[in-house]
Amino acid sequence: MNLKSLGEDRLIAALTRGLPSRSDVRVAAGDDCAVIGGPRDLRWRLLKTDAVAEGVHFLPTEDLRRVGWKALCRAISDIAAMGGVPEHALIALAAPPTMEVAQVQALYAGLRRAARKFGVAIVGGETTRSQGRLSVTVTLTGSVERAHCVLRSTGRAGDVLFVTGRLGGSIAGHHLDFKPRLTEARWLVEHYRPRAMMDLSDGLGADLPRLAKASGCGYLLDESAVPKNRNCTIAQALGDGEDYELLFAIAPREATRLESSWPKAFPKLPLTRIGTLTGKITALRRKSAGYDHFA
Amino acid sequence: MNLKSLGEDRLIAALTRGLPSRSDVRVAAGDDCAVIGGPRDLRWRLLKTDAVAEGVHFLPTEDLRRVGWKALCRAISDIAAMGGVPEHALIALAAPPTMEVAQVQALYAGLRRAARKFGVAIVGGETTRSQGRLSVTVTLTGSVERAHCVLRSTGRAGDVLFVTGRLGGSIAGHHLDFKPRLTEARWLVEHYRPRAMMDLSDGLGADLPRLAKASGCGYLLDESAVPKNRNCTIAQALGDGEDYELLFAIAPREATRLESSWPKAFPKLPLTRIGTLTGKITALRRKSAGYDHFA
Repeated sequence: MNLKSLGEDRLIAALTRGLPSRSDVRVAAGDDCAVIGGPRDLRWRLLKTDAVAEGVHFLPTEDLRRVGWKALCRAISDIAAMGGVPEHALIALAAPPTMEVAQVQALYAGLRRAARKFGVAIVGGETTRSQGRLSVTVTLTGSVERAHCVLRSTGRAGDVLFVTGRLGGSIAGHHLDFKPRLTEARWLVEHYRPRAMMDLSDGLGADLPRLAKASGCGYLLDESAVPKNRNCTIAQALGDGEDYELLFAIAPREATRLESSWPKAFPKLPLTRIGTLTGKITALRRKSAGYDHFA
Repeated sequence: MNLKSLGEDRLIAALTRGLPSRSDVRVAAGDDCAVIGGPRDLRWRLLKTDAVAEGVHFLPTEDLRRVGWKALCRAISDIAAMGGVPEHALIALAAPPTMEVAQVQALYAGLRRAARKFGVAIVGGETTRSQGRLSVTVTLTGSVERAHCVLRSTGRAGDVLFVTGRLGGSIAGHHLDFKPRLTEARWLVEHYRPRAMMDLSDGLGADLPRLAKASGCGYLLDESAVPKNRNCTIAQALGDGEDYELLFAIAPREATRLESSWPKAFPKLPLTRIGTLTGKITALRRKSAGYDHFA
């Protein structure tokens, strides 16, 4: 069987079973970031690695400043989804020997801009020769107060589901220019206790089932409530991916209070109640697979 | 100008100038690892990212168990070269959709074996589609007691230069099966005060000038003393690369004591005095460029 017929989720499940661990590993594969720290440490460390590749995540004709921005901001979005703050980045570049130096410098200009904006230090990297395609693998560290760390796997039946922003149509430009919801996620964990959270990278239609499954729950999704970007259908909002918005579950008693305080804190960014976690594993009524890297 | 004509060292120098930093960054790009921590912290954290790619670091026909071993052990070797211990690894895989699942599992078997052997937890990863070639990017964290952390840049004129093991001819198999000198490096920093250290990945002919330059020194290399692997010429010992042995500089008063205690601690692994750091920038008499990723 090859990777295409197995699919990304099953491949990852197969590879991550029984990996060597250590006593300081709180969460390994399966969440937005790995979480490291002792059970009594006041701060936990976060680790994330993420790649963007020409032809998969961006077009060969793309302005590489935007690609650099995207490459780092994707990882920042994952740190944000744990409730954390980003700290140190390493950049591994695979580039063809014929690539112009000015192009690599444009990529780094985008990386630097994102790093400055979100307080990240770029502390190292690596360059190797590729066969013609450019790819950028970013590793990002971060940290989070133990009390504020939010996993995917701790949602409970009855929790209310919210998403930030609007979904769908990211290919028009948002997938390169998005702003990771770092400020919003930090505000959320400092003022509320979201039970489970993740960032939407493969589309709500793929990512919501992952959050629910990780929490041992089903879910009810009110498709009519899903906030769509202009000119987007519900299928696009569920399936396009690369929204980099936050999806989280929160106790009902906190949900109402949050709905009134959010617009005061973030008047320009909608927050939308889209459903609930349920006790039983239930399927999304509308089939929408989201993005699979090997499909 | 393209990457090939600029060359790897000058590219890295251009990209790493003026990168965004933070107050807890002790060493960023330019050493075997990045070093993170406050000046008074008793332990510092180490970060390294490193990639191996099909057609560059291994042949398409290679047993992927050996490739997995190599991918993780290269990064472990970098942590060892700082005097540190490895802790947590993230694996980013770029693989063609047509690749057999069993092949990826073989790769992971090699990664797991290396992780278990050296006490590393594999805490996450990422898979993306590639255009036909396999590449594996490993990020490894580690830590080191502040007092034991050894940089490349702190050698002094008069220091004696040593290498472990024998050099050259790694392509015959050593480049896939090498054992990172973790035990040896830890013993060294716990019993001595090496002033500067690095691991030999691009060949002594390329790496010794880097260590000397980082320390603001020149060097004298006694080519007749360089320990060569069987059937290797001095050119191979200097230029083949992928030895993954330790190169270090140590004060003369410690050098003599070390030469008598090393064989008792490591009877099977030679340690060889190969030269000295000097006050002036001097060139290696025999020209040997070592490995440039874009040449």
